Amino acid sequence: MRILGLDPGYAIVGYGVIEHDRGKNIYIGHGAVTTPAGMELPIRLMEIHRDICTLIDKYKPEAVAIEQLFFNTNVTTGINVAQARGVIILACAEKGVPIAEYTPLQVKQAVVGYGRAEKKQVMELTRIMLGLKSVPRPDDAADALAIAICHGHTAASKLR
Amino acid sequence: MRILGLDPGYAIVGYGVIEHDRGKNIYIGHGAVTTPAGMELPIRLMEIHRDICTLIDKYKPEAVAIEQLFFNTNVTTGINVAQARGVIILACAEKGVPIAEYTPLQVKQAVVGYGRAEKKQVMELTRIMLGLKSVPRPDDAADALAIAICHGHTAASKLR
Repeated sequence: MRILGLDPGYAIVGYGVIEHDRGKNIYIGHGAVTTPAGMELPIRLMEIHRDICTLIDKYKPEAVAIEQLFFNTNVTTGINVAQARGVIILACAEKGVPIAEYTPLQVKQAVVGYGRAEKKQVMELTRIMLGLKSVPRPDDAADALAIAICHGHTAASKLR
Repeated sequence: MRILGLDPGYAIVGYGVIEHDRGKNIYIGHGAVTTPAGMELPIRLMEIHRDICTLIDKYKPEAVAIEQLFFNTNVTTGINVAQARGVIILACAEKGVPIAEYTPLQVKQAVVGYGRAEKKQVMELTRIMLGLKSVPRPDDAADALAIAICHGHTAASKLR
């Protein structure tokens, strides 16, 4: 199963693509959709929406896995991230790709086997599981790959 | 100038259309875009996006005025509203209609002339300014008309 993992953001949306086959994760690609800080909100949302559509067309995922949103520190940033997340989910819906949502705890549990694992551990285990020489950059893309692994793991456990 | 006012929401997006001409506000229409509670988020976002596009095609506004988002009580509801607001802004951007954002304080100031006016006063003055027999229903549509009036007022003051 081809999975597109997404780490939603406003300035940066990290993405990671894997192929999950009977417990094995094969790395396909990763990267980030970025919009410049000076760009107006409506144009930024249009770019994010268009780029996610392009990613889906390119990688043809059978599922999208996206991180659940939590607001803790900065509410203004949080509103912008949620607005961007809205157009990301819209793009997936328009392309007919089912979306699954995971909490950071679920992602850590799936990748490290421990819900309170540190970010560095998650990244390092993501690297090892995908057989990569170095941790994917930016961090948002590494997070997105971890989310994709989490979906493969969870979808697989549901099938059993 | 034809103005589409929008009161963003998840379950209900209120809308109100006015024609603003040299300080005069002419009522054109109002209503609400609603999505059922049981519907899945991606489908709801797709419906809201499509309905806002349809509204823009129908009323051909030269500007969209939308209420600024504040998070106070329920953060989960707030995330859903912000996600819906993202696809609303996207629809306006795709249709090439400029969007202006106003705080509730600015709307009250423009309609009642007093930033701490009560909601009922704003609704009653909106009714009177537009020459309507009763306050438009639902409340979200009345709010949207007030936001449209606020934009006409503000845009007019900028032109002077």
